[in-house]
Amino acid sequence: MENFNFKAYSEMIFGKGQITNLPEVISRYGKNILLAYGGGSIKRNGIYDSVKKLLKDYNIIELDKIEPNPKIETVRRGVKLCKENNIDVILAVGGGSTIDCAKVVAAGAFYDGDPWDLVTNPEKIDKVLPIVTILTLAATGSEMNGNAVISKMDTNEKLGTASVNMKPQVSILDPEYLYTLPSIQTAAGTADIMSHVFESYFKKTEGAFVQDKFSEGLLETCIKYCPIALKDPTNYEARANLMWASSMALNGLCGSGKPGAWTCHPIEHELSAFYDITHGVGLAIVTPRWMRYILSENTVDKFVDYAINVWKLEPKEDKFALANEAIDLTEKFFKDCGIPMTLKEVNIDETHFDEMAKGAVNMVL
Amino acid sequence: MENFNFKAYSEMIFGKGQITNLPEVISRYGKNILLAYGGGSIKRNGIYDSVKKLLKDYNIIELDKIEPNPKIETVRRGVKLCKENNIDVILAVGGGSTIDCAKVVAAGAFYDGDPWDLVTNPEKIDKVLPIVTILTLAATGSEMNGNAVISKMDTNEKLGTASVNMKPQVSILDPEYLYTLPSIQTAAGTADIMSHVFESYFKKTEGAFVQDKFSEGLLETCIKYCPIALKDPTNYEARANLMWASSMALNGLCGSGKPGAWTCHPIEHELSAFYDITHGVGLAIVTPRWMRYILSENTVDKFVDYAINVWKLEPKEDKFALANEAIDLTEKFFKDCGIPMTLKEVNIDETHFDEMAKGAVNMVL
Repeated sequence: MENFNFKAYSEMIFGKGQITNLPEVISRYGKNILLAYGGGSIKRNGIYDSVKKLLKDYNIIELDKIEPNPKIETVRRGVKLCKENNIDVILAVGGGSTIDCAKVVAAGAFYDGDPWDLVTNPEKIDKVLPIVTILTLAATGSEMNGNAVISKMDTNEKLGTASVNMKPQVSILDPEYLYTLPSIQTAAGTADIMSHVFESYFKKTEGAFVQDKFSEGLLETCIKYCPIALKDPTNYEARANLMWASSMALNGLCGSGKPGAWTCHPIEHELSAFYDITHGVGLAIVTPRWMRYILSENTVDKFVDYAINVWKLEPKEDKFALANEAIDLTEKFFKDCGIPMTLKEVNIDETHFDEMAKGAVNMVL
Repeated sequence: MENFNFKAYSEMIFGKGQITNLPEVISRYGKNILLAYGGGSIKRNGIYDSVKKLLKDYNIIELDKIEPNPKIETVRRGVKLCKENNIDVILAVGGGSTIDCAKVVAAGAFYDGDPWDLVTNPEKIDKVLPIVTILTLAATGSEMNGNAVISKMDTNEKLGTASVNMKPQVSILDPEYLYTLPSIQTAAGTADIMSHVFESYFKKTEGAFVQDKFSEGLLETCIKYCPIALKDPTNYEARANLMWASSMALNGLCGSGKPGAWTCHPIEHELSAFYDITHGVGLAIVTPRWMRYILSENTVDKFVDYAINVWKLEPKEDKFALANEAIDLTEKFFKDCGIPMTLKEVNIDETHFDEMAKGAVNMVL
C-alpha cells in the first residue's frame, strides 16, 4: 500500500424522499441559485417541479441543456450566468455530465480567463462556488469527488480535470429517481461504476487489501443488482445499492494507496471525443479487450482473485483458464445487460485509430 | 437499506513518514496547541520528540496521563488548560482513549458548565476546537468519527457521546507507529475493529448489500493480518491494513442505512466501568457468547453469509451447524491472538451482574 491522502468530505443525504432537505441545505449558502440540468428528463419525471416548489423563496437562474458529454461552450454559458447574477450556490440536478459541468462552472465563476484553462491546467482552479447535487443516474461518482470531464469538440478533446475544491458540499441521492431511467442508462451506468473499480483494482500496487476487498464488494454489487434493476426498474433495493456503489466507487475508497495512471478511461475518452458515444458503453466495449491484453504471468494472480472473489468461480490449477473464464463472464455480463459490445454497433471504424491512440497516451502522460 | 446521512470529512493522511506534514496541518488553525497524550509510550517510541521538534515554533501546552478508559477528571483538566491558554487546536497523539478525551475537551472549551454534561447530553455540544490526531493504535476508529467514550468511576458510568462537530479535522496515520505495540494491544485493537463491524453487520436491516460487503472485507482484513502483525510486528502491509481497517470500520461505511442500537458495546462498557479492563478484551469475551445467544431462525441466514463470505466455509445443508462453526472460529481466532477469553481470567465475577445488566440496557434505551 502506497502513502495517500483521503478526504471525502461531501455530505451524502441518501434515501427516498430526502429532497425535502433541499431548502435547509441551500439556505447554508445564500439566496441566488444556478440550477444546472440536462436535456429535460427532470421535467418529465417531476424532479424539476419538486425543486422549483421547494425553492420558491429563492432566486433561481437556469443553466439548461447540458449535454451527455458536457461541452466547454456550456461551461462558458454557465460561468457568464454566475458572474451576471451573483450566484451563491450551484444546484446540479442530473447525472455525471451535469455535475461535471457544474463543477467547472463553479470554478470558472472565480476565474478571469477562459474556463477551458481550468480543464487543461487544474492547478489554476482556486476558489469554487459551493455545489449541491441531486443525483439522477448511478454511474460516474461525480456526486462525491472533485473530478470533471469536459469536451471540446472542435479539437476532438475530452479531458478530465480535478480539484479537491470542486467536491460537492452536499449530494442528495434518492434511489427512486432511478426508476424511470432507460435500460441502456442503467446498464451503461453500471459499466461505468465497474470500470472505476477495475482501474484501481488491477493496478500493480501490492498489499492494499482493504481497498481491494471494497472493490470486490462493489463489483459484486453491480453484478447482483444491475440485472434486477433492468428486469424490475422500481426495485428499491437494487436501485439503492447501485446508487451507493456509484458514489463509493470513485471517492477514494478503492483507489487510495494505489497510485498510477488509468487505462480504459483514457481510451474511452478518445472514442467519446471523436464519436460522442455514451461513456459507459465505450467502457464496456473496451474493458474485456483490455483485460485480455494485459493478462500475463505478471497479472494472472490478480485475475484469479477476481475470478474467485467476484465471480465465485471454483479455484483450478490452470490460472490462465480461470482468468479467461472471468474475463468472458465480464463480457457476457455487459452483453446480457443490453450493451452493444462492438465498435461497429456504435458506428466506429478504424478511421481515427492512430490519432485516438496518440490522444489516449498523451492523456495518461 | 434505510435512509441515512453520511459525512466522513476528516482528512486522512496515511503512510510512513507522514508526520512531516504536521507543521503545515497545524498552521491552518493557529499558534497555541494543546498536546494530548497518554501514559508515556509516545516518549519511549520517539513520537513525542518528533512532534516537539516539528512544532518547535508553536506554543505547546501538555495534557498528559490520559487513562486507557479516559476519566471525566482528565477532561476537566484539559478544558481548564484550553481556557487558560487560548488554545487554537488540540493535537491528540495516541489511541482511541486519548482522541476521545481530546474531543470532549475540545467541546468543553466552548461550554460553561461541567463537561460531564456533554457526555450525558450530546445535544449540548456546539462549537468545538479543531482536533488533529496522530494515531498510535488501530482499534477504535475515533480518528475518523465524532464519537467519544468517557468514564466516571465514582458512579461506575462509562458513557458514549457524539457530535459531527467533534470529528477530527485531520488524522495522520503512520502504520510504522504500530510496530512497538504490545501484542495484547494489537489483538485487543483488532477485536475492537471487528466488534464495530459486527454491531452493524448483524443488524436486522435487509438489503444494505454494499455496507455488508464492506463489513465482510474489513473482517477478512482483521482475520488475515492480525496474526501476521502478532508474529512479525514490523510487517508494514499487516500494520497498514489493520490501521486503515480501524478508520473504515466506524466512519459510517458499514453502519449507514442500518439504524438501531448496538449490543456488545453497551455490555462491554459495563465491564469496563466496573472493572477498568481493556475495551477490546471485554468485547472479545462477550462477542462469541452474544453470537450464540442471538443465533435463531431469524438470524441464521446472516450467520451463514458470515460463515461463507468471511470464514470461507463450504456451504452445507445444516445452516445452524454452519453458523456455529463460524462462531467457534471467531472465538478460536480471539484466543489464538492471545486474548484472555473468560471473565474469570480478567478477574470479573458475578458480584455486579445485575447492576451491570441494568446499566447496559439503560445505555441502549
